[in-house]
Amino acid sequence: MSRPLFLVPALDVTVLDGPEGHHAADVMRLRVGEELLLGDGRGGVASAVVQAVGRGRLDLSLTDRWYAEPPAPHLVVAQGIAKGDRGELAVQAMTEVGVDEIVPWTAARSVARWKDDRPLERWRAVAREAAKQARRPWLPVVSAPVPTEALAPTLVLHEEATVRLSTVELPAGDILVVVGPEGGIAPEELEAFVAAGAVPVRLGDTVLRTSTAGVAALAVLSARLGRW
Amino acid sequence: MSRPLFLVPALDVTVLDGPEGHHAADVMRLRVGEELLLGDGRGGVASAVVQAVGRGRLDLSLTDRWYAEPPAPHLVVAQGIAKGDRGELAVQAMTEVGVDEIVPWTAARSVARWKDDRPLERWRAVAREAAKQARRPWLPVVSAPVPTEALAPTLVLHEEATVRLSTVELPAGDILVVVGPEGGIAPEELEAFVAAGAVPVRLGDTVLRTSTAGVAALAVLSARLGRW
Repeated sequence: MSRPLFLVPALDVTVLDGPEGHHAADVMRLRVGEELLLGDGRGGVASAVVQAVGRGRLDLSLTDRWYAEPPAPHLVVAQGIAKGDRGELAVQAMTEVGVDEIVPWTAARSVARWKDDRPLERWRAVAREAAKQARRPWLPVVSAPVPTEALAPTLVLHEEATVRLSTVELPAGDILVVVGPEGGIAPEELEAFVAAGAVPVRLGDTVLRTSTAGVAALAVLSARLGRW
Repeated sequence: MSRPLFLVPALDVTVLDGPEGHHAADVMRLRVGEELLLGDGRGGVASAVVQAVGRGRLDLSLTDRWYAEPPAPHLVVAQGIAKGDRGELAVQAMTEVGVDEIVPWTAARSVARWKDDRPLERWRAVAREAAKQARRPWLPVVSAPVPTEALAPTLVLHEEATVRLSTVELPAGDILVVVGPEGGIAPEELEAFVAAGAVPVRLGDTVLRTSTAGVAALAVLSARLGRW
């Protein structure tokens, strides 16, 4: 297993405490001499060795430091808000495979309605944990939820599309992919996206759950763009 | 939304009852005049219209029938047995994206041990439900668990591999990909796979959870093989 990564505000720390220190010292039980990574979530990463272990804290010596350029182009997914844990599963898996930004989309067929900030905070917490688990140098952005008319997507995943994501011509620059909620994308939403310049694309012949579609699309795009 | 699919032993039924009839009539509450699909899980699919609704049963008239050739080459994933619901999430998502066979792999670092047939039956039930949800004409096979020495994989997903899945030369014929359990693949397991002819490949620079790695690999392979 690769070294675990912990998030810190800046890379000059020699003590890891707070929630990250608790996780490292009390949950993962790292010991003196073990190696770990520190990340600032904005490309900066340092490797460190545990020098001493206390309750909820580690003393560290930093051994190396580097900077990872932000990925380009950016891959952005507008994720139809889903009920239950499906939205969180989508955020978790998309973060693992490298999504750069997730835009919660309030779709016509979104059964769940976000009445306060808690669901957004939850998505952000899931993305942060998944980015740590995946050892990502850059944290993905989870932006505030938007309605249909605020989106100008590049691609829309749609099971009845005739164009394939695996062969569609990709534009230069950032790519925004729309993933519908469980109930799918309403005809008038699809029309609005196409009018705004989006291309509807398909992923095979099967019907993908909303928590699977974004991950599968990101995998295909990452391979096609040479990110993987 | 596309028409729901129900699994039947043979395509000549005009009454849908039993668990599938219960699901269609009582849970999904299909009504007279609504369309659905019947599948035998072996490539045969029929479209049907509801003629009458009873408690736990539908009377149907069949309107069309067709046969989908089995996909070739087959995509097989040896999935390291994972604890909690991670294995089931992997089976569900891999089935949606079209895996043809899943082989539960008893890996050195599999924390969970299967002591009876129940976990296997659970994986099979999850695959069956996911295949229905995805409208797959062919059900994936979930075979009996195997130890390391019974596997002769084509590819092994490994975060330290230097070859990329997106560009590795793919052999003609079926492809067997190994996905490790949460704790990863042990060095001696990797060695055994390589000795048996497997190529270790990577998916990007991040560390993927066991429930995400197989889906991502299948997406890349499906795009590369022209299945998507």
